[in-house]
Amino acid sequence: MARQRKFWGWGYEDFPLSSGMLENYTDMLKFSLGIKEFEDIPEPQIENLNLKEPRFSIPSELASICSAEVFDRASHTYGKSFRDVWRGLMGRFDHSPDYVAFPKTETEILALMRFCSAENISLIPFGGGSSVVGGVEPSKSEKYKGTISLDMRHFDQILEVDKASRSVRVQAGIFGPALEQGLKAHGLSLRHYPQSFEFSTVGGWIVTRSGGHFATLYTHIDEFVQSVRMVSPSGIMQTRKLPGSGAGPSEERLLCGSEGIFGVITEAWLRVQDMPTYKEAQTVSFDSFEKGVEACRQIAQSGLNPSNARLVSPLEALSNGLGKGTDTVLILGFESHDHELGKWMERALEICKALGGYWKVKEKRAEGPRDKAADAWKKSFLQAPYMRDELIKMGMIVETFETAITWDQFDAFHKGVESATQAALKEHCGGGIVTVRFTHLYPDGPAPYYTVIAKGEKGRQLEQWDLVKKAASDAIIKYGGTITHHHAVGKDHQPFYEKQHSSAFKTVLKNIKKGFDPAGILNPGVLLKEEDLD
Amino acid sequence: MARQRKFWGWGYEDFPLSSGMLENYTDMLKFSLGIKEFEDIPEPQIENLNLKEPRFSIPSELASICSAEVFDRASHTYGKSFRDVWRGLMGRFDHSPDYVAFPKTETEILALMRFCSAENISLIPFGGGSSVVGGVEPSKSEKYKGTISLDMRHFDQILEVDKASRSVRVQAGIFGPALEQGLKAHGLSLRHYPQSFEFSTVGGWIVTRSGGHFATLYTHIDEFVQSVRMVSPSGIMQTRKLPGSGAGPSEERLLCGSEGIFGVITEAWLRVQDMPTYKEAQTVSFDSFEKGVEACRQIAQSGLNPSNARLVSPLEALSNGLGKGTDTVLILGFESHDHELGKWMERALEICKALGGYWKVKEKRAEGPRDKAADAWKKSFLQAPYMRDELIKMGMIVETFETAITWDQFDAFHKGVESATQAALKEHCGGGIVTVRFTHLYPDGPAPYYTVIAKGEKGRQLEQWDLVKKAASDAIIKYGGTITHHHAVGKDHQPFYEKQHSSAFKTVLKNIKKGFDPAGILNPGVLLKEEDLD
Repeated sequence: MARQRKFWGWGYEDFPLSSGMLENYTDMLKFSLGIKEFEDIPEPQIENLNLKEPRFSIPSELASICSAEVFDRASHTYGKSFRDVWRGLMGRFDHSPDYVAFPKTETEILALMRFCSAENISLIPFGGGSSVVGGVEPSKSEKYKGTISLDMRHFDQILEVDKASRSVRVQAGIFGPALEQGLKAHGLSLRHYPQSFEFSTVGGWIVTRSGGHFATLYTHIDEFVQSVRMVSPSGIMQTRKLPGSGAGPSEERLLCGSEGIFGVITEAWLRVQDMPTYKEAQTVSFDSFEKGVEACRQIAQSGLNPSNARLVSPLEALSNGLGKGTDTVLILGFESHDHELGKWMERALEICKALGGYWKVKEKRAEGPRDKAADAWKKSFLQAPYMRDELIKMGMIVETFETAITWDQFDAFHKGVESATQAALKEHCGGGIVTVRFTHLYPDGPAPYYTVIAKGEKGRQLEQWDLVKKAASDAIIKYGGTITHHHAVGKDHQPFYEKQHSSAFKTVLKNIKKGFDPAGILNPGVLLKEEDLD
Repeated sequence: MARQRKFWGWGYEDFPLSSGMLENYTDMLKFSLGIKEFEDIPEPQIENLNLKEPRFSIPSELASICSAEVFDRASHTYGKSFRDVWRGLMGRFDHSPDYVAFPKTETEILALMRFCSAENISLIPFGGGSSVVGGVEPSKSEKYKGTISLDMRHFDQILEVDKASRSVRVQAGIFGPALEQGLKAHGLSLRHYPQSFEFSTVGGWIVTRSGGHFATLYTHIDEFVQSVRMVSPSGIMQTRKLPGSGAGPSEERLLCGSEGIFGVITEAWLRVQDMPTYKEAQTVSFDSFEKGVEACRQIAQSGLNPSNARLVSPLEALSNGLGKGTDTVLILGFESHDHELGKWMERALEICKALGGYWKVKEKRAEGPRDKAADAWKKSFLQAPYMRDELIKMGMIVETFETAITWDQFDAFHKGVESATQAALKEHCGGGIVTVRFTHLYPDGPAPYYTVIAKGEKGRQLEQWDLVKKAASDAIIKYGGTITHHHAVGKDHQPFYEKQHSSAFKTVLKNIKKGFDPAGILNPGVLLKEEDLD
């Protein structure tokens, strides 16, 4: 039997956190936040959920692909943000979808779209359900008769492998691990590892412009999208398989980031990589954050294009098992299937050294150089969502937000965002911790990623977080950043997204949507307000 | 006094071709095409042009920015393709714009748009006028009262330099040389050199997705566009200055390639480069085209990312002063402001050597290694449009077309396109030459660039070329390529463009356009058919 996934939180029910990981972290929290006692919120039980009856009936021709099972409906009610997990823990599933559809063909998807359009039922494309921005959450509005969540899990095949062009055609519902396993047989890898990797899909990555493994050049899935096939209520859009083009505005880039409001991605050709055989890794410490930032800027502009370049602030480093909380840490990596990378790393380290960076010289080992700090980071990175759930059960408010900003603005931006968030934490939670890292680097600026943690007040955590999040988001917009670098917009970021683009672009989105989805049933409230669809 | 530009062809009236260049080329043509005698078409004289009277009057508030001078109208009638130059030489200016407007402010542009929208006059954004795809040509249709060409030459300033982020804000009407001269003062360079560099503008590059200097990674201007400002009849769209974002579909990518049908780009923030101080250059020969192609594929997939990697077929090499017409030549280059590139070139040459590539070892010189072949190529590249005009005056049909295709399809594609073009040349011109080079390389495929030359029949050259071009374009679409990699769509490629995208995408374009340009006056016939705007 397949392992059971939590209906209320991240991942598998039976996943064991690394021993001591949670204890170390809570010790740190006790110490730094002066916490004496944690809450102990019990996990919700599926048999206790009391979902509302579906508000409409499914026609017989769609009955076989639609489920009204409590587990299906509950686990398609939310994504995986703090807001989602907390509401799940509280057993709040009032706005669960009325049905979950599991189509196996495009014809079935089109039939669902026809039914929903005719009956005014909102239809929400659902990949892995790992959204942290309210991207898969049903409308609460009375204007729809109800909601169907459209789960793409049966679109899970690798359809074609073109080794000469290093490209693969895949169905969009395939999950990260299945994709990598299938590619491995051909010596290939997409090498796109969002933190959600295990429980997210290619289609989800494309429509949310997910951020992956590569710290430079191939920061988003966008770069790997060679062509796309999308089913919309108005028909199918298929783009041509091309390595590059200058014919009109990019069709693929229009669908990247469309978040299910135009249609459902069913297939894509992806650009993949050879498996890297040469790797260089080094962890560099700086005695000030500013020096680390400057090293990142110079490396980002050097043309060396490291695959890995994560700058971690002292406190965040500490909480991830990197260093003692005094140094800023830069995790640097290069990888290639084609050539030794000694020269690349040598030059990157020269840049660091000139700025006072220092590091331990490592022994070369038979299986290639390892970097314990980088390994610790990776382990911590993948387990983070599991640990987050545990912390939420302890009554903690724990969440991340992320952005991008040009180098010239970074100092003022970072100070502005950090202090606005700290002030809001102080006001609404009596204090808390804000840490930062850079997840991706561009020649013209970094993508800062903030982690927030605070002790919540019993039963009020959602309200508290929403106030802090609003303060942080307002600051991001005020100081010139983007409301999201790779988490997407969803419902949660929509009001801030609207502030960062021209009203002219809102008209563009509305006009495109009207063409694809004349009845306005697809993922309402995402990217555009529900009112905008009238 | 400023040098006078030709109103009928490329560049300055008084530009001198390098001595012997034309003679060598015509000797080659005589030999390979068996030409005994060339035509001698006289250049048209401005005083002999008999343009139609403007079909409407300009309101007094716009009078000071509009010209009905014959020279202005004539030089805004066409772009710079073979079709354009040939018609210019023949003195065919029947469909010249009624006026040319030279606005200095966005307010004036908006006033022009209001006037044209109210009066049903088509308005054509005009940068350098270097389109080779009918991108700036007035409508012949009766449905418009007339045409105004909107020349952006007064928007020619560098407005802001952000050295930390290596970004500059420029007005969109600035020409290539003025931009580079302005950047040089800051030690910066855009390093985007389309063949039209001297007579094209930033705004033109953006809306046509121009292809530049870099053979890999930064192949199109798209990569350098950080933010854009566009004036449309419905108002102004301004995107945020960001190094990267995941908020909704890319706003910049929607305007890249919009070819003036949504609005006029007035400003952009561009990502620029440090001036390179380290350069490696080498010219490698292969005894077969196939081996050269395979070397390109391996280099494109190696992650070395050369700045230059042009593969030139034997005959094309010969006509550009590279080699004896027996070898396929690969011009390879690396450049950096940050580090020595010996290791990079070493590895690229290893790849070539394993495929039988060979080269002359060069002496290192004080000013850095030079590469005579690369220099010859550069000289030939920049003078090519001038020489093309001379050849057209001699009655020759001479033109290029370009595309991109994935590696798995390349062999069949190239054979298909080349033989269809050859067959059409045989049928319509009694024969001719087709040569190829790769201008840009992607991990998943090359961008092949074809040059066609044939002896025309007096007075019939346009008709002959149109038949050949149609055959070539049909083959490009049939064998899976794109109708353009970096020349854009314009009016000329519109019927083929329509075949390469879904009808769903046509609806997208129409819906976006309706929002920006409700009266349908902007650059009609480009990207969309004029009928599509009804």
